[in-house]
Amino acid sequence: MPHRFSKLASGTMDSFIMSLVDVAARPGMISFSTGLPDNSLFDVEGLAAASAEVLREMRGDALQYDSATGYVPLRKRIAARCRKELGFDAGYEDVIMTNGSQECFDLLARMFLDPGDCMAVENPGYLGAIQSFSAYGPELLGVDVGPEGVDTGMLSEAVGSGAKLFYSIPNHQNPSGNSYSERVRSEVAGIVRGSGCLLIEDDAYGELGYSGRAGRTMKSMAPEDTVLTGSFSKTIAPGMRIGWMVVPEWMRAQAGKSLEAMSLQSGTLCQKIVDRFLEEHDYDLYLGRLRRAYSEKKDFFLDAMEDELPDCMGWNDPKGGMFVWLTSPAGSDAMRIFDAALERKLVVMPGKPFHVRGGGNTLRLNFATPSEDQIRVGMKALGDACRDVLGKRGDASRALLPPPL
Amino acid sequence: MPHRFSKLASGTMDSFIMSLVDVAARPGMISFSTGLPDNSLFDVEGLAAASAEVLREMRGDALQYDSATGYVPLRKRIAARCRKELGFDAGYEDVIMTNGSQECFDLLARMFLDPGDCMAVENPGYLGAIQSFSAYGPELLGVDVGPEGVDTGMLSEAVGSGAKLFYSIPNHQNPSGNSYSERVRSEVAGIVRGSGCLLIEDDAYGELGYSGRAGRTMKSMAPEDTVLTGSFSKTIAPGMRIGWMVVPEWMRAQAGKSLEAMSLQSGTLCQKIVDRFLEEHDYDLYLGRLRRAYSEKKDFFLDAMEDELPDCMGWNDPKGGMFVWLTSPAGSDAMRIFDAALERKLVVMPGKPFHVRGGGNTLRLNFATPSEDQIRVGMKALGDACRDVLGKRGDASRALLPPPL
Repeated sequence: MPHRFSKLASGTMDSFIMSLVDVAARPGMISFSTGLPDNSLFDVEGLAAASAEVLREMRGDALQYDSATGYVPLRKRIAARCRKELGFDAGYEDVIMTNGSQECFDLLARMFLDPGDCMAVENPGYLGAIQSFSAYGPELLGVDVGPEGVDTGMLSEAVGSGAKLFYSIPNHQNPSGNSYSERVRSEVAGIVRGSGCLLIEDDAYGELGYSGRAGRTMKSMAPEDTVLTGSFSKTIAPGMRIGWMVVPEWMRAQAGKSLEAMSLQSGTLCQKIVDRFLEEHDYDLYLGRLRRAYSEKKDFFLDAMEDELPDCMGWNDPKGGMFVWLTSPAGSDAMRIFDAALERKLVVMPGKPFHVRGGGNTLRLNFATPSEDQIRVGMKALGDACRDVLGKRGDASRALLPPPL
Repeated sequence: MPHRFSKLASGTMDSFIMSLVDVAARPGMISFSTGLPDNSLFDVEGLAAASAEVLREMRGDALQYDSATGYVPLRKRIAARCRKELGFDAGYEDVIMTNGSQECFDLLARMFLDPGDCMAVENPGYLGAIQSFSAYGPELLGVDVGPEGVDTGMLSEAVGSGAKLFYSIPNHQNPSGNSYSERVRSEVAGIVRGSGCLLIEDDAYGELGYSGRAGRTMKSMAPEDTVLTGSFSKTIAPGMRIGWMVVPEWMRAQAGKSLEAMSLQSGTLCQKIVDRFLEEHDYDLYLGRLRRAYSEKKDFFLDAMEDELPDCMGWNDPKGGMFVWLTSPAGSDAMRIFDAALERKLVVMPGKPFHVRGGGNTLRLNFATPSEDQIRVGMKALGDACRDVLGKRGDASRALLPPPL
């Protein structure tokens, strides 16, 4: 093979997540591993009706090319929601539609990272986004995330040493399920404001807080230095691939130009269908149903953990989103729990790949996708896997553990 | 503004095409300028029925995440068409679905171009793709294209001097409307075979030959050194953003990994809808209707050119696709014709932006989008614009011109 891949290509990380998607799809497997939403909650009828109406009324126009930055009525709707729910002012020109929010991360990395630049990422942080950034070869500065959010001292240091971007999920983080406190939010906004470091505020789970939004957006506190990214993938339908980013005015033209070079434009038929769906449904009522369903699923899942897992394991009680974060005793190897669970036909997600450093004793569990039956059976398998790996040291040692991350 | 754009971003060309989309959308404007298909030819009912069925039968699964490289049944269908119509063997694993074929170009540039590399592009060549490649900062080597296709002597030289990629539209090229002869096709395949230069064979218009395909695919002659890109944007619906590339086996894993970092996956709901549509309709019958419609439109357009344009203008008679290529006398400035037409509320596309060098006396006209009435009115405006700019020198000089490119 005489063709040589570029440095950019060779630097692209393998995705451990996507390899697990294939494993999880094997017959008889139960999965707590992926980030898939519960597809029984999608409003299939509502979207089918919206699709039929859009095609009947707009005819060929529904299928034609559209503006590179997306369908204007949907962008207006998103801008209005930013003003009403997210606490900052935005016009539709600031909203740029993308092929899922993953395309935002690639677009932002491309727009801001030169080889040798550094950027700050959460530790642990969302692997899919970090994979996207890594392709551009930056030095990654991991900033620890705990139950109150990011360590602002470490962030301050990273920004001081020249980080050009900071990628953050302040609400019901993937993977840890934790959210930033109000104090952390305003400190982060203060750190990035005017610093030359651009904050990427990923709001993928922001609408899935069980008792409303987990806190104010940092975009509202540092609007010129923040890009907020959003998506309908966790709420309406991942397969429609509708993501967006809300950019400061100074970034608009460059973002449009770079997007065009990357993919010309994202799918406007689906944008038109979702716009119609949102015109005909009360989105807050819709989200309320989702939040209740996920909250109940989470409670059921945590009860099963309480029943089945040995006392040496620790976990948090997330206030939104789809993930719970599990820790085994300090010094133990959660990858061995992953292997032992796999033998029992349960796929879980080791926490280590989400880390720039550490995290060897952590696991991410998705409670949104499995059914109650699968949770029951799967949790029993997970409990057995933990006992297999941790042996007798298990049951007495919980009190000695640090609080779960 | 303290944030600094990357070199990659700063190198991204402005798109003259997209700026014309906005101009062409002004009220009262007639446009021969864009690359839009005729949206009255889309099968709106067929797609609406397919959409309803997919959602009714697959329910939430239709809306969920899917494989990163796309919906397998559609990929199988495309692979089967490669075997049956395009003359080469392919399995579904070789077919990678993208967000329009534009994403293929970005993906391939990213996979193969390091800064300082050079690549060969057609002169004139498709601006949108060249914009995509340019973002990675390669040196562009322009290889002239004439009525028989690319100048294979120049291509051979470019490959000899280390071009890593050659981007080619062998069928009904955008912008010139010309196709490669059989001789040129086999020479190109011979040049790239084993050379270390990867051929990107863009087949966007391949299915729109008025009397069938214009020639054999080069992918069939140099399968290990060619990526063939395809799209339903010119045939079924641009707004669904369904593109793909057929890659050699050695490229599969890297292509999947790079695609995932870029956009995770493209829209699988629309892929499912189109797959259903193709299950229920005879695609060749469907394409036959499109080809007849475009062929008749082209004849009507050329008749109007004959009636309205001064004798000093020259043009070709394309055998497929959506474009005719217009030349004004050597030394004249077609940008002035563009300006004069704009004053008369007609938007045409200057040929110069499609060129690495030369082309100042060329224009690209799209005959697919305008209605017959618009063609009549618009061509009169274009004739007047030509006479405005070229004045008296016009009517006697045609015989002195070189043949149209």
